Amino acid sequence: MATSLSCSADQLASFFGPNATDATSAASLICSQLEAINNKFSDTAYAVDSTYLLFSAYLVFSMQLGFAMLCAGSVRAKNTMNIMLTNVLDAAAGGLFYYLFGFAFAFGTPSNGFIGRHNFALKSFPTSNFDYSYFLYQWAFAIAAAGITSGSIAERTQFVAYLIYSSFLTGFVYPVVSHWFWSVDGWASASNTGDLLFGSGVIDFAGSGVVHMVGGIAGLWGAYIEGPRIGRFDRSGQSVLRGHSASLVVLGTFMLWFGWYGFNPGSFTKILSAYNTGSHYGQWSAIGRTAVTTTLAGCTAALTTLFGKRILSGHWNVTDVCNGLLGGFAAITAGCSVVEPWAAIVCGFVAAVVLIACNKLAEKAKYDDPLEAAQLHGGCGAWGVIFTALFAKEKFVNEVYPGKPGRPYGLFMGGGGKLLAAHVIQILVVAGWVSATMGPLFFILHKLKLLRISPEDEMAGMDLTRHGGFAYVYHDDDDVQSNGIQLRKIEPTATTPSSV
Amino acid sequence: MATSLSCSADQLASFFGPNATDATSAASLICSQLEAINNKFSDTAYAVDSTYLLFSAYLVFSMQLGFAMLCAGSVRAKNTMNIMLTNVLDAAAGGLFYYLFGFAFAFGTPSNGFIGRHNFALKSFPTSNFDYSYFLYQWAFAIAAAGITSGSIAERTQFVAYLIYSSFLTGFVYPVVSHWFWSVDGWASASNTGDLLFGSGVIDFAGSGVVHMVGGIAGLWGAYIEGPRIGRFDRSGQSVLRGHSASLVVLGTFMLWFGWYGFNPGSFTKILSAYNTGSHYGQWSAIGRTAVTTTLAGCTAALTTLFGKRILSGHWNVTDVCNGLLGGFAAITAGCSVVEPWAAIVCGFVAAVVLIACNKLAEKAKYDDPLEAAQLHGGCGAWGVIFTALFAKEKFVNEVYPGKPGRPYGLFMGGGGKLLAAHVIQILVVAGWVSATMGPLFFILHKLKLLRISPEDEMAGMDLTRHGGFAYVYHDDDDVQSNGIQLRKIEPTATTPSSV
Amino acid sequence: MATSLSCSADQLASFFGPNATDATSAASLICSQLEAINNKFSDTAYAVDSTYLLFSAYLVFSMQLGFAMLCAGSVRAKNTMNIMLTNVLDAAAGGLFYYLFGFAFAFGTPSNGFIGRHNFALKSFPTSNFDYSYFLYQWAFAIAAAGITSGSIAERTQFVAYLIYSSFLTGFVYPVVSHWFWSVDGWASASNTGDLLFGSGVIDFAGSGVVHMVGGIAGLWGAYIEGPRIGRFDRSGQSVLRGHSASLVVLGTFMLWFGWYGFNPGSFTKILSAYNTGSHYGQWSAIGRTAVTTTLAGCTAALTTLFGKRILSGHWNVTDVCNGLLGGFAAITAGCSVVEPWAAIVCGFVAAVVLIACNKLAEKAKYDDPLEAAQLHGGCGAWGVIFTALFAKEKFVNEVYPGKPGRPYGLFMGGGGKLLAAHVIQILVVAGWVSATMGPLFFILHKLKLLRISPEDEMAGMDLTRHGGFAYVYHDDDDVQSNGIQLRKIEPTATTPSSV
Repeated sequence: MATSLSCSADQLASFFGPNATDATSAASLICSQLEAINNKFSDTAYAVDSTYLLFSAYLVFSMQLGFAMLCAGSVRAKNTMNIMLTNVLDAAAGGLFYYLFGFAFAFGTPSNGFIGRHNFALKSFPTSNFDYSYFLYQWAFAIAAAGITSGSIAERTQFVAYLIYSSFLTGFVYPVVSHWFWSVDGWASASNTGDLLFGSGVIDFAGSGVVHMVGGIAGLWGAYIEGPRIGRFDRSGQSVLRGHSASLVVLGTFMLWFGWYGFNPGSFTKILSAYNTGSHYGQWSAIGRTAVTTTLAGCTAALTTLFGKRILSGHWNVTDVCNGLLGGFAAITAGCSVVEPWAAIVCGFVAAVVLIACNKLAEKAKYDDPLEAAQLHGGCGAWGVIFTALFAKEKFVNEVYPGKPGRPYGLFMGGGGKLLAAHVIQILVVAGWVSATMGPLFFILHKLKLLRISPEDEMAGMDLTRHGGFAYVYHDDDDVQSNGIQLRKIEPTATTPSSV
Repeated sequence: MATSLSCSADQLASFFGPNATDATSAASLICSQLEAINNKFSDTAYAVDSTYLLFSAYLVFSMQLGFAMLCAGSVRAKNTMNIMLTNVLDAAAGGLFYYLFGFAFAFGTPSNGFIGRHNFALKSFPTSNFDYSYFLYQWAFAIAAAGITSGSIAERTQFVAYLIYSSFLTGFVYPVVSHWFWSVDGWASASNTGDLLFGSGVIDFAGSGVVHMVGGIAGLWGAYIEGPRIGRFDRSGQSVLRGHSASLVVLGTFMLWFGWYGFNPGSFTKILSAYNTGSHYGQWSAIGRTAVTTTLAGCTAALTTLFGKRILSGHWNVTDVCNGLLGGFAAITAGCSVVEPWAAIVCGFVAAVVLIACNKLAEKAKYDDPLEAAQLHGGCGAWGVIFTALFAKEKFVNEVYPGKPGRPYGLFMGGGGKLLAAHVIQILVVAGWVSATMGPLFFILHKLKLLRISPEDEMAGMDLTRHGGFAYVYHDDDDVQSNGIQLRKIEPTATTPSSV
Repeated sequence: MATSLSCSADQLASFFGPNATDATSAASLICSQLEAINNKFSDTAYAVDSTYLLFSAYLVFSMQLGFAMLCAGSVRAKNTMNIMLTNVLDAAAGGLFYYLFGFAFAFGTPSNGFIGRHNFALKSFPTSNFDYSYFLYQWAFAIAAAGITSGSIAERTQFVAYLIYSSFLTGFVYPVVSHWFWSVDGWASASNTGDLLFGSGVIDFAGSGVVHMVGGIAGLWGAYIEGPRIGRFDRSGQSVLRGHSASLVVLGTFMLWFGWYGFNPGSFTKILSAYNTGSHYGQWSAIGRTAVTTTLAGCTAALTTLFGKRILSGHWNVTDVCNGLLGGFAAITAGCSVVEPWAAIVCGFVAAVVLIACNKLAEKAKYDDPLEAAQLHGGCGAWGVIFTALFAKEKFVNEVYPGKPGRPYGLFMGGGGKLLAAHVIQILVVAGWVSATMGPLFFILHKLKLLRISPEDEMAGMDLTRHGGFAYVYHDDDDVQSNGIQLRKIEPTATTPSSV
């Protein structure tokens, strides 16, 4: 068995002994070479890991494109530009706020267990712990959370309210949560370097709780306080509103799927890490396995939704299948790195059931969420947190969170109930924190009349009233166009009953 | 010249000799360090190669998005959701079936030359030969084959038939073919560790035959048995049907182009492999060259199609150029790694001609394939198989398929006819196998009345009759919407001048 | 401190001395092992850097998809296929011309300071300086320049004119510029191995001048010579034309953002390069920082545009925000690698102001550029060149352009005015060269009546007259369709029941 790479010139010189012409020089030459080799390995690891992390960050960023298209397709045509603008600004405002404050609150070290306090505006960057690529990766996560919320309150929210909540969420609410569960100083982090919560800490690897529940619960409060869109529950409780483009929904879903390979496997942040040096099995295998569990959970959830909705509604519904798929992804996100592929199938199956149930519940409660964001990211995200506590495998937990032997793992895998206890705490704490911050914010905006647009604007559509026109002009006629924007909307004004 | 990295402590100790104080310790210290270095190189190679393979797999997956958009744009608006749902389910059902059976049939070792028999449901994974990233990569290939076929039978196929053939294709038919030509045990594989077919084996590097012909020929049988869409050949044999969105066609084409860089260069699966250690020329160069040949073949085919169709039809047609481009890619896929860039230009030129000819032939035969999938993937794929047998370069063949010196290469490059013989066998065998499996399947579905939808449903569109509505709602009017889905179609029947 | 990796067997043998049994063999065994290690590091670096460069190239290529969608969404529906076809052909024709001539003019070595003269059609490839991946990366840049120009002259240019200028630009005009500023032989290159212009050379890291100004100024001449589209300035100088799909604009913008991570950080072309071996800070950090500066510049420009246009026009405009974002990216492209993140915020803020000012100016001058390409890529690109000369930081300049200690850097950072002088020269020279080549070309095409389409064709739309039909068919009716393409356009003017 090979030892680790280290060389004592003194020891080596003593082995050569006094009969060698210059044992000291020989030994120091050899050892200095080995030191140089060691440094080159270090350089190589930085380059390889940075390559891995940067391209993962780009993939996570591409999810913002996915969100934009999914949201656009899921709202009515008259609000398309509004929702897309919020998606662009999630990324843009999020970039500034996460740079100025967010990253510092989340990962600035040294810090206490509640909030980070250093590296505002990337001061003293890069550190030996964090490089710019890590910041970029975490920024892409932060804007995903805000993107989730914008879906819940789509089609009826004032743009100013959007700017306020989005900055607050990306710059403060989300960073604090990510500090708790992901920073090495976080009080509930599974990689905390001190004592672990219940001897375990929370294993929320890529953020079913940290990202998806945060976005979903924030959306829940926003949508609840605003109330449903006009016409959503007018007749017999049945939904009479739907999105304007299934093509955009599918495009967005596939982009999110694509980007999720950055989100979940990327959360390892390093790939050049051997579990047993020289073996074919290492962190690169765990990363590949994570991509596989992610894939299988989504696939299973999609198929479950396909047949489930066929039975319930009588047709094969592509947008429901897309949402089911995404629900599977949101659920597997917490445990993706520590469960077996077969367990991911269980995860996806239940996630689809959870989503269908949450949607039924939402309809009963007359809760209107145009993207099903609270149900999908909140509901399936919470299931993912529980799932991890049930199915996390001992071997994988110790590989992914090393250095604390004997730590708890999944209840159904024989690892006891401590991980489950920690995860129940996570759900309560995330729900509580987001409710205690975002709830009052939305309520104050509501009281200040800054939250919801007027009924007239809602009927006319926000694109026309706030964003300068209709998103689409398929049939342009120069004469008509010059008369003004509103004519671009096709509105046959027939005296006979026209059918549109 | 440097020797390979290995160290005998006994030998080194004997060199130091008895006059050294402790020759054995000195030598074992030095050699154990070198062994540690060797292991670190091994770790590094796993990490680098896994990074390369994983991101290539993500790119190949993104082709599914490309297929979805290409297909959506190429069908009529009334069948958009139907075709997109099949694309989502290719990936989803393919994920489960390839996990359960497909990979085992294709690559499970040890096996016979016909079919693999191990690693069902990723049992005993990862092995020293295969890691999870390899599974993910091969899954992305499998679903591409099914995606090709769905294009051929678009706009008239029952959804149940789709679910059945897609699972069968991804879970059995395609894996067996990939076993024959790509597994080290495959009877016709160029990397077979035993005797090679004609001393050569088939060089189908990324699958012009294994993927594209399989998908295309399956589509050919499906579309042939179903017959053309209503209205396709009604008047004078001219096509009177066309897709509903050129934007989606171009979007899909570019995504496929993007993804093809995972498909072709990614098929090396490893990048850290020197042909002569310490030289600037290695597998990384061959990979770059493969990206270049892929690019040039597509570009040439696109330009050839542009001018060819200009002459034939009198206008510059963007969807034809897109199809020509994809035909060039499908053709270069077999030989991309073993031909010179200039040969790729020949490949692309002929591919465009082949596609035009196949389309002429299809029109004469009143064969209706909404995506030209059989012509494009079948026809150009077959040309690619032949092309490789003509233009494969000796040096490249020996670098990419090492360890069998003196093996045959391209006929026009002086390598004799044995490779061509093997490739003719491939075409016959692929065509035969797919016909013998998929043909009867489609025929049985046809006989059971499970294949084609009713003429009424076809006229109304599948989205309305099977998938819950029309894919687009650009001009929503809440009053009208509540009256039912079908009214969303704009049909102004006004007697007064309406403004549009 | 570790020495570099090198070993003299003679020296080592002399240290072991005559008392060792076989000092020479011992020393040569050890040194040959170290040489083998050195070679393995070399192989590893090639593999890691090639992985980094290839995936960066794929990202840059994906910008072509972004351009296509941005352009499509920004023109009227009746010209969608025309503009998308030009985007496909940018890539395709660019592939052939850059392979045959472009790369050789740009980077072929040895060469003079004005133009390269080797490696036509990738002859003698790969060299010790350039591998295929480098060619692919540079090709993706070349086609971006042509894509910019096509936006300026959209909706009114003959297709033949497009084919001519695009080939000329990609095959000659752009390669020469990139030779000047990026080749080690270029007279104004910051990495010139001989004397530097003003002791400095031009630091245009990823091409605010080389790519964006070239594309923008070419577009300026084309659009100026053609004149505005019919109806653009008919009434009160106000624009009465606008794009047909905001969804495509946002889709394209996000894809460009995504691809820009290949464009800017990718321009390092190598990631495994230590600034101090064994330290956590190296080229991988500089690459990450470049991704961050790129992000922040775009984000700031987007937010500045949002509020600026809100004040100026009274609404929140998503397409303006998208253009502002892209203006920020175009500006930061020159200096992205050598400025601090906070400076990128300054860059983005000013870029947004520059874009708004250029657009005002264009409107006053009745200059019509459907994509604002000249304003955005020309104007913001020029600002980016100046910005770099003001804010480039000494430390970063010396790390990114090593080996010339004491070289000038940003004026505001205490680096004197020499870099600014060089950059003013760049702006003048780029503007002059592109004007002297593309200006006459467009003028000749204009004189030969090959540039602009007829007013009739312009009113009808190019898709209908030149490309075989309308890009969209949302409401197909088989009876109507068979009567001809033109009926697919919805124009109910009937007093009798109209058919749609």
